[in-house]
Amino acid sequence: MKVSPRAQDVADLAKVSQSAVSRTFTPGASVSEETRKKVLAAAQKLGYRPNALARSLITRRSRIVALVMSYLENQFYPLVIEKLSQKLQKEGYHVLMFIAEVDEAADGVLAEILQYQVDGIIMASAMLSPNIVRSCADVGVPVVQFNRISILGGLARHASSSATSDNYGGGRAVARLVVERGYRRFGYLAGLEDSSTSIERERGYREGLRELGHEVRCRAVGHYSFDLAQEALRAMFAADAPDALFVANDHMAIAALDVLRLELGVRVPQDVAVVGFDDVPQAAWGAYQLTTVRQHLEPMVDATLTLLREQMRGELQPRDIVVPCTLVERATVRAAS
Amino acid sequence: MKVSPRAQDVADLAKVSQSAVSRTFTPGASVSEETRKKVLAAAQKLGYRPNALARSLITRRSRIVALVMSYLENQFYPLVIEKLSQKLQKEGYHVLMFIAEVDEAADGVLAEILQYQVDGIIMASAMLSPNIVRSCADVGVPVVQFNRISILGGLARHASSSATSDNYGGGRAVARLVVERGYRRFGYLAGLEDSSTSIERERGYREGLRELGHEVRCRAVGHYSFDLAQEALRAMFAADAPDALFVANDHMAIAALDVLRLELGVRVPQDVAVVGFDDVPQAAWGAYQLTTVRQHLEPMVDATLTLLREQMRGELQPRDIVVPCTLVERATVRAAS
Repeated sequence: MKVSPRAQDVADLAKVSQSAVSRTFTPGASVSEETRKKVLAAAQKLGYRPNALARSLITRRSRIVALVMSYLENQFYPLVIEKLSQKLQKEGYHVLMFIAEVDEAADGVLAEILQYQVDGIIMASAMLSPNIVRSCADVGVPVVQFNRISILGGLARHASSSATSDNYGGGRAVARLVVERGYRRFGYLAGLEDSSTSIERERGYREGLRELGHEVRCRAVGHYSFDLAQEALRAMFAADAPDALFVANDHMAIAALDVLRLELGVRVPQDVAVVGFDDVPQAAWGAYQLTTVRQHLEPMVDATLTLLREQMRGELQPRDIVVPCTLVERATVRAAS
Repeated sequence: MKVSPRAQDVADLAKVSQSAVSRTFTPGASVSEETRKKVLAAAQKLGYRPNALARSLITRRSRIVALVMSYLENQFYPLVIEKLSQKLQKEGYHVLMFIAEVDEAADGVLAEILQYQVDGIIMASAMLSPNIVRSCADVGVPVVQFNRISILGGLARHASSSATSDNYGGGRAVARLVVERGYRRFGYLAGLEDSSTSIERERGYREGLRELGHEVRCRAVGHYSFDLAQEALRAMFAADAPDALFVANDHMAIAALDVLRLELGVRVPQDVAVVGFDDVPQAAWGAYQLTTVRQHLEPMVDATLTLLREQMRGELQPRDIVVPCTLVERATVRAAS
């Protein structure tokens, strides 16, 4: 193995100080454009590469953020990866991906993550047990939950920050819309029963309906899965068909539209209204034109990074940021008459 | 900052050797189940976490693989992330994500990656210049390209391995299918002009048609973008409408179906056949039922990891593995009469 060039070799060739070399390769550090160019040219000539891992042992900062995720078949989450990675890259961080099993607490994965001395952890579409959140707090690794709040217990609730969209408010907006458009038999197709997203969306919908003198009469559980949503929907319509169906996310709402139109011959929106949640790009596709509640990805990602930075600075009081949602009307709910 | 417990503290508490502690935390190392349990219990009690980064400086293995990707809106790539991450996790590796700009060589990103002393780099839906491939070879970091081959020059071509599906063969299969089903005016909607996927698929299609006495008469470029594909298609059909359209991926084929059916009032498959490439989950959605060429994700990912392991072991002769594709007939090409 050949001997690697050192920072001093680069400094000598570029005729700058070793500190200038160090600053050139430190994200966010101040260095003049001219110096930076000289250093980069010399570094390239010598094949020098600063060792981020060795630096992390000195600074105790790895500049790595772990992202724990499952459900990449829901088209919302790939966009979260993309946006989070891009924004973190701009700040000199990188994302270490951990794929968690659907429907299981991600505790096993967390133990692995802690080996990497990550600067922080972002949990998205994955759940943590209260124990593991405490473990992270004990070792001083900040955890931010993306669009999940811990419903598992009071301890976890107060040991990590979260950035969510206003799932409750979104559910209420759906209730107002379908009542106003004259639908009267209300159904809910739930996601994962223990996910805060599905719970909060349902709570908003139910409370919104109740205030207007209505209630949910049909309910089924699709577990945020395309196939399970279709099965659940068939059972629901065989038993007691609603005329307005709120579905906990777009992925399942699209599955529902296929069953309603192509199998059951139901006309949407004339006979049945369908409303999703997320506003993934597919919701706007011509064949679906799904009316849905938009989660604003950009401010949600910004809020996540704000919370992460707070925790990294040692602000130990976790908090939750709730980002407003917007109802997006397309073609699966009747227009106002 | 509190003093972190050391491996020796864990060994003392668990009443095992320090080597047993080390083996417990080394992926793939041999340790009895009983010892492992004792070590993990002691480690949890003390809040011990092995430092993967410090270990990487000793072993010169970070157990991190960089994954460079763009185009997460194409539903094929999130599935690649998921499958690659899961398989690498099982082997004790983790994925550091790098999002590259679409349509640009990913050289800037590579410079950052090399700072992390990664054990290898997987490039997917992103291109490398010959220079940067050489740089990686110079510093001994293996690079495997996922579903891309370097078409940029002979140097790059022979400096990295690649795992691709049989894009050329897939294109030929499409040509045979549409000719056999009686279509006669052939169109191609290309992806990125300098991507090997679009180039090879088109080459197979053209050669397949030529052997059967036909040729491509309409051609447009959609750059693998949903919106640009729709624009390109409108222009193509305004100028000279084909009756069989091969589209370089499913993402653009779905965009094309929306324009054909909903804007132009064209009947698919009666008036025009549409065939995609990838077989993303959305291709099977009821509203599209797209006939397409399936890329087999699992063997492609396995081939990628095989090539990566070869390169990590120092087998310096790069090679290409080509995984066969399968034509999947759904409803956008006429059935055999």
